[in-house]
Amino acid sequence: MINVKGYAAQNAKALLEPFKFERREPGAHDVVIDILFCGVCHSDLHMVRDEWGGTIYPIVPGHEIVGKVSRVGSEVKRFKAGDLAGVGVLVDSCRTCSSCKQGLEQYCEVHWVPTYSGYEMDRKTVTYGGYSNQIVTDENYVLSISPQLKLEGVAPLLCAGITTYSPLRHWKAGTGMKIGVVGLGGLGHMAVKFASSFGAEVTMLSTSNSKKADARRLGAAHFINTGDESAVKKSKNQFDLIINTISAPHDINTYVSLLRLNGTMVMVGIPPEDPILNVGSLIGKRKSIAGSMIGGIRETQEMLDYCAANNIVSDVELIAMKKINTAYERMIKGDVKYRFVIDMATL
Amino acid sequence: MINVKGYAAQNAKALLEPFKFERREPGAHDVVIDILFCGVCHSDLHMVRDEWGGTIYPIVPGHEIVGKVSRVGSEVKRFKAGDLAGVGVLVDSCRTCSSCKQGLEQYCEVHWVPTYSGYEMDRKTVTYGGYSNQIVTDENYVLSISPQLKLEGVAPLLCAGITTYSPLRHWKAGTGMKIGVVGLGGLGHMAVKFASSFGAEVTMLSTSNSKKADARRLGAAHFINTGDESAVKKSKNQFDLIINTISAPHDINTYVSLLRLNGTMVMVGIPPEDPILNVGSLIGKRKSIAGSMIGGIRETQEMLDYCAANNIVSDVELIAMKKINTAYERMIKGDVKYRFVIDMATL
Repeated sequence: MINVKGYAAQNAKALLEPFKFERREPGAHDVVIDILFCGVCHSDLHMVRDEWGGTIYPIVPGHEIVGKVSRVGSEVKRFKAGDLAGVGVLVDSCRTCSSCKQGLEQYCEVHWVPTYSGYEMDRKTVTYGGYSNQIVTDENYVLSISPQLKLEGVAPLLCAGITTYSPLRHWKAGTGMKIGVVGLGGLGHMAVKFASSFGAEVTMLSTSNSKKADARRLGAAHFINTGDESAVKKSKNQFDLIINTISAPHDINTYVSLLRLNGTMVMVGIPPEDPILNVGSLIGKRKSIAGSMIGGIRETQEMLDYCAANNIVSDVELIAMKKINTAYERMIKGDVKYRFVIDMATL
Repeated sequence: MINVKGYAAQNAKALLEPFKFERREPGAHDVVIDILFCGVCHSDLHMVRDEWGGTIYPIVPGHEIVGKVSRVGSEVKRFKAGDLAGVGVLVDSCRTCSSCKQGLEQYCEVHWVPTYSGYEMDRKTVTYGGYSNQIVTDENYVLSISPQLKLEGVAPLLCAGITTYSPLRHWKAGTGMKIGVVGLGGLGHMAVKFASSFGAEVTMLSTSNSKKADARRLGAAHFINTGDESAVKKSKNQFDLIINTISAPHDINTYVSLLRLNGTMVMVGIPPEDPILNVGSLIGKRKSIAGSMIGGIRETQEMLDYCAANNIVSDVELIAMKKINTAYERMIKGDVKYRFVIDMATL
């Protein structure tokens, strides 16, 4: 086993604190990555506090991981020591079901292995995430990272990036489409960047006028204050696609009203309570509400390559490992533009 | 004006009773139809009792109308006296918006005119429906009816038929698809007939085992009792498409769980209370919930022609006009296989 350092919470009420644990010795197909940066995702906080249930303690969070390969197993083809590499939300899956064969491991029909607080395919070994100095991952679930981009800005692409990139691609975002993005946080700011990069006409949908200037800077052509009823009323039936990134309680029907005929709102955040759905508003203009979860390994690599080619990274605030608990408190208040990233050199 | 006879309710608590009223003299583009049969739609009852709000009294319901043309205006090209003709849920729309131009009058962006209890494009003249001996309708909103099918079985195609045909076509129902139909009533029995006719593998989803034999007779290959939790659990993640015809309160998430990756549930009935939506279950397999409303004039004609070519009609129980109030009571109990149709000769 390899001895590694990290930060963990021991129970739902505990703060994150230094934690020593072990990773497996690399097998023939494994890649050992010295972690350089790890993004701080809102789901890290939900999981640490067991807000979705099922958290396994102690928990070492973190699934927006970039680093440098230090060792590889004998059969590893795609990586060698010194390469930049990334690990996202999942580190294994059944590899044989129809979803896995399509490169949609996140929809694996058997079991997919979350990067932390989950079980490996043996259903026994607990996984530990990226708030740590090293990780050992099967090469099939490791991403290649271009040296052309600032690495701390790349880390959040592994979750916030792919979670918004994937539905934008699936619903064919591009020139001629009007796309709304709900919520300007870690996911929302990436959705704005990608949708505008794909050529769509992007509108920021937010209840806070303070987001207006930033939304424009990130690529939004328009801004609608969705807390203003008359503004919402004037904007009905116009969007082909809305990416809804909000995981706080909110009235989803307000946003449905903004969709045009055949429009779709894709939920990528999970509100803490299930919302009420106005069925009539879907029927009235053949609208849809859909969900989308991260992206498969193949698409994540495609997204990273797209970002390298188009100079897209996440806007981040770099923090020291020991500041993680303060960062969580600030994240709850929305006080971050737009993603905290831990500089793992501070561990 | 033309003096006509019909049945109307004077207020939300009144029974339907004989009613004399006037229709407009046919204009240059109008068709006068002597009504032979009129289907009894669940929305007739909702509207009569003002359960959706906005009912205009007195109300003459009925939007599943077939009859024989008795007169046509000077400019009418598509119909002549003696032709069979039908009128469905809408009798006019703006004709100029993007939806109307696509033949999607039911999604008109300006105003579409419901066949009864609505306003004509002048926003003043009230419309009266098919529980009546005659109707006068612009030829652009009149359908051609083939003499090859039993006319009483054709009447319900004008609403129950097109409401299920349209989403099945839009979501590309066909060979190789597994389609679930929720609810075996007026809409549900047509959904089963169409989906199986299009080559899909159809499963009836119902809480009542008593529907099993009939569902098979109508074309369903399988039956799942959705009141049986273990049966539902065993059937998860399998349907490409579910047509949900239920307008009673129900847990929509049970049916979402039956959708497979990228599957869509289309709501064609409006439950009396907005349901709660489990967002996580959409996200977990990129599922969608959509709505669909009747169909445009062009698609309604296509559906009628398809039915004539494939010998498809609704299963009906013919009633006399004066039995309408009893029929409503039986409809509430689900005691009809599967559509009441009024024989207008009994008026």
